[in-house]
Amino acid sequence: MISGNCIIAQSGGPTTAINSSACGAIFEALNQKPIEKVFGARNGIEGILNEELFDFDEEDVEELKLLKTTPSSALGSCRYRLKQDDSSDYERIFEVFNKYNIRYFFYIGGNDSMDTVKKIHEYAQKINYDIRVIGVPKTIDNDLVGTDHCPGFGSAAKYIATSILEMSHDADVYKSNIITIVEVMGRNAGWLAAASALTKATDLIYLPEAAFDFERFEQDVRKVYEEKGKVMIVVSEGIKDKDGRYISTLESVGGHDNFGHAQLGGVGSVLERYVKENIEKRVKKIELNILQRCAMHYGSKTDIDEAYMVGQQAVLYGMQGKSGYMVGLKRVSNTPYVCETELVDINQVANFEKKIPSHWINKEGNYVTKECIEYLSPLILGEVLIPTENGLPRYAKLKKKIVAKPDSMA
Amino acid sequence: MISGNCIIAQSGGPTTAINSSACGAIFEALNQKPIEKVFGARNGIEGILNEELFDFDEEDVEELKLLKTTPSSALGSCRYRLKQDDSSDYERIFEVFNKYNIRYFFYIGGNDSMDTVKKIHEYAQKINYDIRVIGVPKTIDNDLVGTDHCPGFGSAAKYIATSILEMSHDADVYKSNIITIVEVMGRNAGWLAAASALTKATDLIYLPEAAFDFERFEQDVRKVYEEKGKVMIVVSEGIKDKDGRYISTLESVGGHDNFGHAQLGGVGSVLERYVKENIEKRVKKIELNILQRCAMHYGSKTDIDEAYMVGQQAVLYGMQGKSGYMVGLKRVSNTPYVCETELVDINQVANFEKKIPSHWINKEGNYVTKECIEYLSPLILGEVLIPTENGLPRYAKLKKKIVAKPDSMA
Repeated sequence: MISGNCIIAQSGGPTTAINSSACGAIFEALNQKPIEKVFGARNGIEGILNEELFDFDEEDVEELKLLKTTPSSALGSCRYRLKQDDSSDYERIFEVFNKYNIRYFFYIGGNDSMDTVKKIHEYAQKINYDIRVIGVPKTIDNDLVGTDHCPGFGSAAKYIATSILEMSHDADVYKSNIITIVEVMGRNAGWLAAASALTKATDLIYLPEAAFDFERFEQDVRKVYEEKGKVMIVVSEGIKDKDGRYISTLESVGGHDNFGHAQLGGVGSVLERYVKENIEKRVKKIELNILQRCAMHYGSKTDIDEAYMVGQQAVLYGMQGKSGYMVGLKRVSNTPYVCETELVDINQVANFEKKIPSHWINKEGNYVTKECIEYLSPLILGEVLIPTENGLPRYAKLKKKIVAKPDSMA
Repeated sequence: MISGNCIIAQSGGPTTAINSSACGAIFEALNQKPIEKVFGARNGIEGILNEELFDFDEEDVEELKLLKTTPSSALGSCRYRLKQDDSSDYERIFEVFNKYNIRYFFYIGGNDSMDTVKKIHEYAQKINYDIRVIGVPKTIDNDLVGTDHCPGFGSAAKYIATSILEMSHDADVYKSNIITIVEVMGRNAGWLAAASALTKATDLIYLPEAAFDFERFEQDVRKVYEEKGKVMIVVSEGIKDKDGRYISTLESVGGHDNFGHAQLGGVGSVLERYVKENIEKRVKKIELNILQRCAMHYGSKTDIDEAYMVGQQAVLYGMQGKSGYMVGLKRVSNTPYVCETELVDINQVANFEKKIPSHWINKEGNYVTKECIEYLSPLILGEVLIPTENGLPRYAKLKKKIVAKPDSMA
């Protein structure tokens, strides 16, 4: 077991659960004798390139514990992609690794971050630098391959389904008819929209995986509308037509704008205009904005606990000498729900994308199947108990004081 | 103590807490010997005009208990205003009251509903019909006079402050600067926007009570932006300029549209365009949509308990023979927070509107004072424990089976 220091960092879009993974990794790393110092990198790989590291020993333990139930990326994130043309980024990273005697690197993130894990692992092998590099998955999009599902997704799914359930109660209040369109995140994969099937309040779901057609859409909506007088429609931001064009970028849908101006708003606005023009004037468009990725106040306990577990397991796998892997979640059983971790070769993960399989979408292309719902159901179970202060969630506050550079200490 | 039957009904926009008040009133009424039957009216006063009553004895007690933690208006709501030109609506109402021997009428609602309470009480006196008519306040807008605050407001306030806190964590993730504009409800009174001051994450607040000026707004935003690089702006949908024009209806702000087209979206979109054009391109506009009035999943325990209390007290006041009143909340002490109910003459309530007093707004017109925050603070305390089913809130399901009309039973 190699002795030395460790870096834990976060990358990509924030989620409700990414700090839970950091929390699991930090406490396990602090606990491991072979690991001397546990550093955080400020803003992911950028913090390594810029030599902006902070020491978790300097943080208040109580604040670190709060990380488990703190949304967003407390260590700071980035969207930086390592330079591919020359090796200068890699040289710099390993210069810093060497300077701080970094022997363990745990990177929590999505697709791009797993690519970074792969590249750093490969470069270490190339230059014979002894280090364990392990990826920890997170993404609300649930689109990473090699893992049954992604930490962060379950909480987003729970928030979306709960919000839709509540909005349907709101829509039921008056006698008058109403059509509600809820736009959720998901550029290429429709998992978040699919999660709305967890509440019966959702009538129709449109996914990027199924080509969108306005005529069929109109038929679908009219059918529910005539039956119930209320329609709850959920749509992924990334739905496309049969030619692969994003619906959100289509102009003049509904025939409103005769001057050829681009219409404002995303796909929800496009569908809202279409419904208003062709079906019913009383239509409400709701954008479930960034709250869907940071609403810890109604996070899924299953998700948050699993996120903690993958973070912790990453360190334990590192201690076993593993490198070049992502920690995957493996569903052992669905009823009762049992899930454990396993190692996944990073080459099987980086740069791939997991979409909803076509047999999990109904033949009308406007809902998901029972099988899909069974897959989703356990991921939202349980509520997270968040410490509060004055009636609001009390989230972790880290100092993140950058440590003095070793050469300046010399 | 007069014996007879009772009607409980809901009106106006739904809130998180209006069913809690119904719950309190229903159980207290079911408990009272002089009350024989406890009816609900479907969709408020419309249900009385249409003779659509349902019997709470026919409902499952467990479902009725769930009403306490169920958002929106389970009995159904309406926005109907009683006809003022002739007395036909009143004649019809008292025809139904008489037919069903209604001697107690509890109406849960906002401003307009309190006007209905007043009118029905006056008409009963005029025709010498023996009935107790009592209003139960609710509105997320917190704009009813005669009560320290309104049931429904505290939960909306908690949801808004929590969401802003969480979104500020999200905005802090990257190094890049960002300006966030959050639009909240509040057409004439800014209480909901003011509630965002409950989290330190909020930098600037614009209220309908303070005339909005674009130049000052730009100065305010620039100042925070230069200091912090991130700005969290909260704005009431109903802010107006010094001439009383709604900012949301101003066209061509930001100089975008040279063809004189009305721009889409509300005030958040107008400010977003202005910021993008004049201050910073990275600006995000969030509309805290209808969830702010129905997000029971993070409701305020204080609010929900008080809502239950005012519903229950309405019945108890009715049993004391009171009529023509609204149940008000009276703050006995702030630290510790103690609140009780009192009767408020309905004439002091109906058709008035309580705005934020000007001395609770700072002199720059871009935040509220410490006094205002002290007033708001206790209203969001405590979390509501919601029963769940499969990871989602389990909300009440009522049958609302319309009872057979007495004359058809004869």
